[in-house]
Amino acid sequence: MHDTAHKAEAAAWLAMLGDNLGKGDIEATLDLLQDGCCWRDLVAFTWNIKTMEGKPAIAEMLAATLAATTPSASEITQASKTDDGAIQAWFSFKTSAGQGQGIFSLVDGRCRTMLTTLQSLDGHEEAAGMTRISGVTHKADRNRETWSERRAREEAEFVEGTADPYCLIIGGGQGGIMLGARLKQLGVPTVIAERNEKAGDSWRNRYRSLVLHDPVWYDHLPYVPFPDHWPVFTPKDKMGDWLEAYVKIMELTYWGSTECVSAVFNPETKRWRVELLRDGKKMIMQPTQLVFATGAYGPPKMIDLPGADSFAGEVLHSSHYSEGSAYRDKKVVVIGAASSGHDISVDLWEAGAEVTMVQRSPTTVIRSETLMELGFDIYSEQAVQNGIDVDTADMIAAATPFALQPPIQRALTEKIRTRDAEFYRKLKATGFLHDFGEDDTGLMMKAFRTGSGYYLDVGASQLIIDGEIGIKAGVEIDRLSKNAIHFADGTALEADVIIQSTGFHSMHEVVASIVSRETADRIGTCWGLGSGTRNDPGPWHGELRNMYKPVAQENLWLQGGNLALQRFFSKFVALQIKARMEGIETPVYAPPL
Amino acid sequence: MHDTAHKAEAAAWLAMLGDNLGKGDIEATLDLLQDGCCWRDLVAFTWNIKTMEGKPAIAEMLAATLAATTPSASEITQASKTDDGAIQAWFSFKTSAGQGQGIFSLVDGRCRTMLTTLQSLDGHEEAAGMTRISGVTHKADRNRETWSERRAREEAEFVEGTADPYCLIIGGGQGGIMLGARLKQLGVPTVIAERNEKAGDSWRNRYRSLVLHDPVWYDHLPYVPFPDHWPVFTPKDKMGDWLEAYVKIMELTYWGSTECVSAVFNPETKRWRVELLRDGKKMIMQPTQLVFATGAYGPPKMIDLPGADSFAGEVLHSSHYSEGSAYRDKKVVVIGAASSGHDISVDLWEAGAEVTMVQRSPTTVIRSETLMELGFDIYSEQAVQNGIDVDTADMIAAATPFALQPPIQRALTEKIRTRDAEFYRKLKATGFLHDFGEDDTGLMMKAFRTGSGYYLDVGASQLIIDGEIGIKAGVEIDRLSKNAIHFADGTALEADVIIQSTGFHSMHEVVASIVSRETADRIGTCWGLGSGTRNDPGPWHGELRNMYKPVAQENLWLQGGNLALQRFFSKFVALQIKARMEGIETPVYAPPL
Repeated sequence: MHDTAHKAEAAAWLAMLGDNLGKGDIEATLDLLQDGCCWRDLVAFTWNIKTMEGKPAIAEMLAATLAATTPSASEITQASKTDDGAIQAWFSFKTSAGQGQGIFSLVDGRCRTMLTTLQSLDGHEEAAGMTRISGVTHKADRNRETWSERRAREEAEFVEGTADPYCLIIGGGQGGIMLGARLKQLGVPTVIAERNEKAGDSWRNRYRSLVLHDPVWYDHLPYVPFPDHWPVFTPKDKMGDWLEAYVKIMELTYWGSTECVSAVFNPETKRWRVELLRDGKKMIMQPTQLVFATGAYGPPKMIDLPGADSFAGEVLHSSHYSEGSAYRDKKVVVIGAASSGHDISVDLWEAGAEVTMVQRSPTTVIRSETLMELGFDIYSEQAVQNGIDVDTADMIAAATPFALQPPIQRALTEKIRTRDAEFYRKLKATGFLHDFGEDDTGLMMKAFRTGSGYYLDVGASQLIIDGEIGIKAGVEIDRLSKNAIHFADGTALEADVIIQSTGFHSMHEVVASIVSRETADRIGTCWGLGSGTRNDPGPWHGELRNMYKPVAQENLWLQGGNLALQRFFSKFVALQIKARMEGIETPVYAPPL
Repeated sequence: MHDTAHKAEAAAWLAMLGDNLGKGDIEATLDLLQDGCCWRDLVAFTWNIKTMEGKPAIAEMLAATLAATTPSASEITQASKTDDGAIQAWFSFKTSAGQGQGIFSLVDGRCRTMLTTLQSLDGHEEAAGMTRISGVTHKADRNRETWSERRAREEAEFVEGTADPYCLIIGGGQGGIMLGARLKQLGVPTVIAERNEKAGDSWRNRYRSLVLHDPVWYDHLPYVPFPDHWPVFTPKDKMGDWLEAYVKIMELTYWGSTECVSAVFNPETKRWRVELLRDGKKMIMQPTQLVFATGAYGPPKMIDLPGADSFAGEVLHSSHYSEGSAYRDKKVVVIGAASSGHDISVDLWEAGAEVTMVQRSPTTVIRSETLMELGFDIYSEQAVQNGIDVDTADMIAAATPFALQPPIQRALTEKIRTRDAEFYRKLKATGFLHDFGEDDTGLMMKAFRTGSGYYLDVGASQLIIDGEIGIKAGVEIDRLSKNAIHFADGTALEADVIIQSTGFHSMHEVVASIVSRETADRIGTCWGLGSGTRNDPGPWHGELRNMYKPVAQENLWLQGGNLALQRFFSKFVALQIKARMEGIETPVYAPPL
């Protein structure tokens, strides 16, 4: 695979690129690119998360960033030919701020895609491997501060208010924890404030039967990978224990039972004034950077159910559902047919409830087994055996910009459709509304566009096919009465309990509740690509809105997503924050969105 | 390094060996060996930890074991030439019970050393990597037992006495934990009973300034290696936290605050009747296998100090010393000049005490920096970069039998002596008694022979050289008086406190206290090689006495040693126990010692 001829060709091309960039010759640089070339930059050139699509956008970016970035010393580390005949090459490079790594693809000698990423800041590299700390000074010292004394002091000074952390992370789920770990390794004083008592509770508190739908190879946290005997699919409580252990091992300053009440930015001092309730006790903290890591989603979204007052039963949101034993023999209507709607329906069925799922719009269902085989090729044991570790896989995944994903994803959809034709036939025969997205781009694009509307089938679909879980699909809800839910077509379902598995508001609603409505609106909605499809209005912007990058509020960051996205992007958020702490110039290219 | 020619030569030799063993032709087998050939077997042929030294011993072992072992399918996996011109080859093989791995060296076409190890039992392989468990059944199931429900049931059944574990490990320090992890992965129901409240407390409870003297590359636990940013030398409380997290991650059944009162073996049922005090509450457990993992050492050994009654100050054993703040400005005499004597003296000096160390016999001192450079070559970041991971390094280390260590260790001593000549000159000038062992074999052989009498210098020696820590060496203690310790030469030292850093009894004393004096004496002393040097009386037996292998009491095992030894040998102890649980034939070659 790693052909020296390919490497030579890639090296020759990269030398030309380096030459042109070195001379600031943008015109000549563009000659090296294909017309539709996409250049995705993660913090290396733009101090932003940004994809430039096409030569004019690339030219504009280079004109704005080249002088400050001064890329140099680029070198091919490996190159190979892909299935479609392109040469894919990995390279390292330097910028004025640090070390970078990238991947480009060449077709007919010209670049089709370019990924550039900042990997470390000069003089602020993480201490690991050869450069790991000693852990002890081999010398008697009457002023010795032991490891535990240092840890205790660090923990105490923020509690006592004698010092402020540079960064406060609101939310100590997986996202806050991974970012906290990255910041710790970069030496950024950070506090993670979590509403729950313990790290891992955000997983433990969820419904009884929950098991991660993504496989272990896709779920690693940075620094401490899951061991080789870890199950493919991690049960939620085991995940909770892992996160709790991780927080301890990584020496994070993690405050449980801590709620963030309000945060006000002072544009003079460039610091936040944050009011916290720690174990019920009010305290003020003045960090410079404020990160919202409150989950990829904002507050629970409940739909309005006319007549709810007259309903004699219980109505709750899926996020408040934990287990089904109280619902044995009860008639339960689950509104919503995405991941949690399916999982909760199974949990209820297992507990002996009579469940009907109300489906308001089509869902993308893919059998777990199928996606494992077709969709997780670079995140698999086979990949590990082939030398593709999780960091390598993340870079490979990042090397294809969102703009180029649709045809790739449509091809995957075709494979899935063919492979599981019988499954989809049976599922649709129940009345279940199934699609692969409006444009057949499937589960992954739904995840990036709206984070909703899909289910990785781990058992619910068979119950639906078997009629064990009822389906009421494509009909508007009219109103509730004392014991029933009524639909626009005149039909009704008896119900003792209604569970709204109706999703969540955008993350910026959390900003509204803690900072201000004005700030939240200025930032705008989070997540989504601007695809112009349902619930992801245009214009197209080619990266996730407002995630992992500067937003329309200084010193405020949004960190969310599944384990894989947060693992990968936490690195870039951490580097952006560290650069600001160290007073390194961080000229952000392109306005926030 | 890995030359195909060497591989071919090794393969040819191995084919001949396989052929001869296959035919049961011991005579012909011996022709393939050098006269002084040593064959070290770890559980593969002997179901024992045993080195056969010379052809007669090898012939005898083969005659006894070959028929039951039926070694086959041996295959060279790699081969290289060592500095002294030997070919060193790694190979895999099969036995009637499982899969083996070995290393042999060839000089002039004949075998000089052979290591054979059992790596797994057929049909009972650990589930990892490609064979890891799924973690979930992707199917709705009304009888679903979730991960946490299963864990809770497993924990509860031993507490409630509705089931007995197959194995009880007494002692939940690093040794009990590592063995527990191995047994867990092999599916052996196991309880670890620890006197302290929490896992890791055995480290936390030790003296304030303690930091591991061995580097991180040597200290890994199985399954979950320390991450890349881990300090070279782990502070004791950080080690405690790691062990606590490890117990959780590995899902061990770990009972803190549990003391083992007594254990009686029933030769009819082949089970133990163990009385435990769990949180002060008496309970009976009937495991089949009983492991003592109570530390490499037994109970603290105190020397008799005539006149102790008249002494006005405090006398304590080093194992009860935790930190020095109470001893500020006090005159403290530390009896003993090995590792803990040195460390505690520094701790006291740092706290502002006036410390004198009483040295009764010569100590082997090696500067940490020096040993890191000369002694830990295969356990280093450089080794990792060269592809030598910890498991590889352990096999390399095991491939040289104890019998062949002395010349190697003497050569190392020579290097150290030359390198640090000035250091040793200054140290001896203080009156400090220094040696490299009676036969110049240095620190490592002292560790294996007696587990005492050495110090890896991390700062104390400079304090001794500078006169900050006093030395009283080579003079017998006569008696204590009210405020002083008097010596045979008529001198005396004023003392407010006396700390006996005088070592520990053999592990078999713990067996005596829990099982019986008779059983302990039948087993005999533990540790040591039988070198005939001080405190390690002959006859020579070539492996650690009674450690990691069957002893003179059925279904009783002794597990101890530093992190590295326990990491490596816990695998073989676990395989021996698993084989017995599964009813696999385990004919033990050679009587216990």
